[in-house]
Amino acid sequence: MTLTHPTSITARPGLPFVDIVREFDATPAAVFRAHTDRELFARWTGPRTMQLDEVELDPTSGGRWRFAFRAGEDDMQMSFSGVFHNVEPNALIIQTFEFSLAPNQVGVSSITFAEVNGGTRLTVHEVYPSVEARDAAMASGMDHGIVEGYERLDEMLAA
Amino acid sequence: MTLTHPTSITARPGLPFVDIVREFDATPAAVFRAHTDRELFARWTGPRTMQLDEVELDPTSGGRWRFAFRAGEDDMQMSFSGVFHNVEPNALIIQTFEFSLAPNQVGVSSITFAEVNGGTRLTVHEVYPSVEARDAAMASGMDHGIVEGYERLDEMLAA
Repeated sequence: MTLTHPTSITARPGLPFVDIVREFDATPAAVFRAHTDRELFARWTGPRTMQLDEVELDPTSGGRWRFAFRAGEDDMQMSFSGVFHNVEPNALIIQTFEFSLAPNQVGVSSITFAEVNGGTRLTVHEVYPSVEARDAAMASGMDHGIVEGYERLDEMLAA
Repeated sequence: MTLTHPTSITARPGLPFVDIVREFDATPAAVFRAHTDRELFARWTGPRTMQLDEVELDPTSGGRWRFAFRAGEDDMQMSFSGVFHNVEPNALIIQTFEFSLAPNQVGVSSITFAEVNGGTRLTVHEVYPSVEARDAAMASGMDHGIVEGYERLDEMLAA
C-alpha cells in the first residue's frame, strides 16, 4: 500500500474560487513534467474510471490544451479545454479552462510548484466566471476526480 | 456636442467581478472591429491623457494582446496583456488580462456584442483572481478610463 498525502480542496460559499493544496514526494520538475507532457498527463488525470479519448497539450504562452472523455449512462463525450496564459518551467502554469457542457463559461487557473522538504507543494487557484459556475463544478463531484487523480499521480511518480 | 450613452459599471462588494454595460450607435461589426483592429483599438482605448506606446493585438484563439503606456509622476511604463481564449467575429471575445504592476494576478474577461435597436449593446464581464485584486483595480480609477475610452470610441465611430 502506498501512503499518499491529503488533498485540501477549499470552496468558500459565495465566492467563485476553488483552492487546492497537495504535496508530492517528487521534485517540482517531476510534478511539472506530469502536468505538461501529453503522455504523462493522460496517465493520471481524472478518476480511475475516466477514459481519456483525446489529449492535446501545448504548454507555451498562447498554446492550447484539451482533453476529451466519455462519461454518464449515454457514454457522451465531454471535454475540458483552454489556452495557456503563462508557463514558467517547474514553477508556474496559468491557463484558461472551459467545460464543453457550459460553453463560454471560461475560468482561469493558476498552478504553482514549490519545493518543500525535498518534495513539492502544488497549489491550484481556480477562478470561475460566476459563483453559480463554481457551485455547479463542485456539485458535479470534481473533488472526487481531483483526489483520485492525485493518487494516480503519486503512483506514477513512485513507479 | 455629441450625445453619448451612459456607461454602467458594477462592482459588487465581496465579489471579484466588474460588469460593464454600454450601448453604441453603430453596428456590432463596427464595435467589434474597434476592439480587434490594432490601429482602431489604439485610437480610443483608455482616458484621453493616456499615451499608448505599444499595441499588439492578434484576435485569434491563442493569440496575444498587449498595450503599454506611460503614467504617473515618473512617467513609468506599465502594460496590460493577455491571450485570447476565444474570438467569435462580431459577437464575442474571451481573453485573459494581467497588469504589469501585479504580475501573475491573471483575470479573464468576456465581451459580448449584441445588436439592439440598430445599435450595439456591449457587455463586459471581468473576473479577477481575488476580491482584493478587483478592489485594487477599481481603486486605481479604472472606471474613469473606461468611461472616457468609450466616449472616445463614440467619437471615432461617428467620424
